[in-house]
Amino acid sequence: MDFQDVIDSLQGELDLVEQRLRQAAEVDYPLVGDFLEAIITSGGKRLRPILLLLAARSYNYDIPVLVPAAAGIELLHTASLVHDDTIDNALLRRGQPTLNSAFSSEAVILLGDYLFAQSAMLATETMNPRVVRVFAQTLGEITDGVLREIFNGHRIDQTRQEYELRIYGKTASLFAGAAEMGAIIGGAPEDAIAEIRAFGSDFGMAFQIVDDVLDFRSTSDQAGKPVGADLRQGTVTLPTMYFLEQSDGSATATLVRRIVDGEAVPDDEVREVTRLISQSTAIDRALDVAASYIDRARERLAILPDPHTREQFSILTDLAVTRLS
Amino acid sequence: MDFQDVIDSLQGELDLVEQRLRQAAEVDYPLVGDFLEAIITSGGKRLRPILLLLAARSYNYDIPVLVPAAAGIELLHTASLVHDDTIDNALLRRGQPTLNSAFSSEAVILLGDYLFAQSAMLATETMNPRVVRVFAQTLGEITDGVLREIFNGHRIDQTRQEYELRIYGKTASLFAGAAEMGAIIGGAPEDAIAEIRAFGSDFGMAFQIVDDVLDFRSTSDQAGKPVGADLRQGTVTLPTMYFLEQSDGSATATLVRRIVDGEAVPDDEVREVTRLISQSTAIDRALDVAASYIDRARERLAILPDPHTREQFSILTDLAVTRLS
Repeated sequence: MDFQDVIDSLQGELDLVEQRLRQAAEVDYPLVGDFLEAIITSGGKRLRPILLLLAARSYNYDIPVLVPAAAGIELLHTASLVHDDTIDNALLRRGQPTLNSAFSSEAVILLGDYLFAQSAMLATETMNPRVVRVFAQTLGEITDGVLREIFNGHRIDQTRQEYELRIYGKTASLFAGAAEMGAIIGGAPEDAIAEIRAFGSDFGMAFQIVDDVLDFRSTSDQAGKPVGADLRQGTVTLPTMYFLEQSDGSATATLVRRIVDGEAVPDDEVREVTRLISQSTAIDRALDVAASYIDRARERLAILPDPHTREQFSILTDLAVTRLS
Repeated sequence: MDFQDVIDSLQGELDLVEQRLRQAAEVDYPLVGDFLEAIITSGGKRLRPILLLLAARSYNYDIPVLVPAAAGIELLHTASLVHDDTIDNALLRRGQPTLNSAFSSEAVILLGDYLFAQSAMLATETMNPRVVRVFAQTLGEITDGVLREIFNGHRIDQTRQEYELRIYGKTASLFAGAAEMGAIIGGAPEDAIAEIRAFGSDFGMAFQIVDDVLDFRSTSDQAGKPVGADLRQGTVTLPTMYFLEQSDGSATATLVRRIVDGEAVPDDEVREVTRLISQSTAIDRALDVAASYIDRARERLAILPDPHTREQFSILTDLAVTRLS
């Protein structure tokens, strides 16, 4: 069994999710509809809806309630990307033009708000107050994560705990929320809801750490952004933290500090620093942390009653790591 | 009985609402907490919470559920103001510094999102799926209204219907949503819920039309923005529509078109145009429309079983108009 098999087994539900997402793009303003549809449908692997669906699979698999919840969590993700892109003024994401390339920033802020509203409408369609509460909490956690990134930007001396709070909010909270929403809709026992949520959180932490590693290794084509983008915008991630710890006082470490501080450092020097970090053991140490999150996530799967779903979840976790190869 | 009596009769609940609003401002990021608190607490008359509370008053007046709902709808209003101010890059609102004066626009977008999340959390605290659904729908309607303002900006030829859709979304939707949420929590009969919601909507429409009139009449001090601000930013409101209808082809009408188109028109000419509109019968015609909304709103109050609440609601509607004197 591989990831494609997991997708195949959920294809009917995922098609319904896709339909609901397209509906959210149908708007009345000139030009906007096509762009929204492109943004919504260009989108990735639908990991969050898959997680939400799998979380209910061992229990009461209530498709008419799961589908709007899954579409809601995916659209929440999309809405937060729209605001992220506004903040970065990014013109491309996943190779597609962003809203910023076509509309004023005022329109893009509001289009993001519009998508938030649509995602909340989808979540409320479940008519399950606990599900909606998790949804609202997730929105709060995402914004907390991004605010931490903004307010801790250009600060070199950050604790590991601060980094973890940040990536939890920015990324893991959505995976945790998706998993919890699915388990609640499925009517899983309370201990299973807690473990499934924690699985989502651990998986999301690993996912983001791998993302932070990829920022040092991938080419601009792969990640859709230039190598070392985090460093350039003053965001200190785990590889950088380990690198500074290992090479404190070195000339490279000093240069890293200057880049994070926001000094104008020539592009070729930034590239060289990025290369040095990418070839250092800081990367291996960061990946070890990701691997230990994945291990913990897998252990939590013991709570699931059926081995088939357990295996499907396990295949999902492989994804966090296979992106590296 | 006057507005102060209405406030006095709700003082205990309003104090609890105020507490919940302050809690939403308690955040962990440097400097932000003080600013958020200033923005949240500088805020106006709390008309939306008052409307929500009054809507339940004739029925089951369940304070522990009403308070978070009322705080949620007020915070939704605040969040949308934060994004509005980002869009306008306004540095002052109600005489207070806005977030824009102290933080980067990226931070302000996210702080707005954070307030949206907090407001949604408050709404979900009611654990009433129908209330949360109205809340999410209201967020959608607000963003729709502001998007219409953006996408129809600088367009002189707009239908009256387009204007009404716009001010419904921008303003009346929140009053309608507040009233409906209160009536639902109160367990009002379905026909009363519909009428109370419609009351909120009509009241909100009148409120915004008066606001659009004030934009031509008040001094910068009163409204916290320069006279003719709407015109300057290309927003066509009801007084402008009537003025153009009445004076089609005149030199002033041509000048109005140029201002709305976004041409660089000297400040003294804009002021002169604003003065001409403010002294024209276009203002009286716009106020007649506001008055007819108020009349319709008052008629709807017949559905309320108790005369005391009916009178309190009626005093609330006076507010829309007394702002003119």
